[in-house]
Amino acid sequence: MSRWQPGTRERLEQAALELFAEQGFTETTVPQITARAGLTTRTFFRHFADKREVLFSGEESVPGQVARLMAAAPPSLGPMDLIAEGLAPALVELFEGRSLDYLLRRRAVIDAEPALHERELRKWALMSEALEQGFRDRGADQLTARLAAELAVTAIRTAVTRWLDRDGEPGLPEAIEETLAAMKRLTVTGSLP
Amino acid sequence: MSRWQPGTRERLEQAALELFAEQGFTETTVPQITARAGLTTRTFFRHFADKREVLFSGEESVPGQVARLMAAAPPSLGPMDLIAEGLAPALVELFEGRSLDYLLRRRAVIDAEPALHERELRKWALMSEALEQGFRDRGADQLTARLAAELAVTAIRTAVTRWLDRDGEPGLPEAIEETLAAMKRLTVTGSLP
Repeated sequence: MSRWQPGTRERLEQAALELFAEQGFTETTVPQITARAGLTTRTFFRHFADKREVLFSGEESVPGQVARLMAAAPPSLGPMDLIAEGLAPALVELFEGRSLDYLLRRRAVIDAEPALHERELRKWALMSEALEQGFRDRGADQLTARLAAELAVTAIRTAVTRWLDRDGEPGLPEAIEETLAAMKRLTVTGSLP
Repeated sequence: MSRWQPGTRERLEQAALELFAEQGFTETTVPQITARAGLTTRTFFRHFADKREVLFSGEESVPGQVARLMAAAPPSLGPMDLIAEGLAPALVELFEGRSLDYLLRRRAVIDAEPALHERELRKWALMSEALEQGFRDRGADQLTARLAAELAVTAIRTAVTRWLDRDGEPGLPEAIEETLAAMKRLTVTGSLP
């Protein structure tokens, strides 16, 4: 499907992440990344707009995937069930395409750099907007759609953080289940467990 | 309490907001703001680090206020009650210090400029961190504290948006109450209202 050498993109990602971790994001240049990967800067710019986008590649398609997923789900599925049964498995699939080591190192790099952190926040804000529209299309009123979208993003972000904090054990599906259960407990009883 | 002329800060805020709305945030300079306010740039920099901070002034103290408020609340108050009974009234007080017109124009300016939007997201992220620590100090486990903090921020942001969307009627306390009720309904039944 691609006219590029297989693995080129992955080699660039790997090299970039190593350099970001070793010497910092700001200090790392595209020529350094391509030198480490044994590729040209021209090749780099065929794959990525800039060094920042190496960390966020592929994510621009997530809001569209969310929209398609929601449109395809049975209409009877309420918001929380849609999160648990529809969105969570897709998320698990997305993350399982990456090694845990990659995800942990990526997170460390993002946390160390405010500009990357803001980019990460924007990513979640875009996902929330896609979710809100999806819930609206399923008949939710504005307030419910907004809240359901934010609860979904909160559940997903919290579960992923928890999963990474524990070095991948137990797995992401368990972390999502745990998180949704705790969310429900919190809002229902309003008290601490 | 101040050695500055009363109202100086407010005049600068007013002038800045007018100019941001008229000609855009990027195009507006500090000398333009001070000319409009009839003040010197030196006076401007006594009050604000840069033009961006005019829109976010006073907010750096919010996480500290949140922490104090949570420490002072009765220990028996669970997370959701703390949001409804402790945080919401403080928020109402904070917002009621501003005219609705000011808040609506401020929001329009922020929404029009990605860099301001990211700054706004960071503000909420900082508030969420303060809330999480507050819930931890009250004995919540890590997962519950994180979720309670995110639910609080979601409720507050959603209620404020809703209140502004409806031009301030009904009031912010009603918008908060409505939002918390919808959140509970959503997580309990998992279905649309």
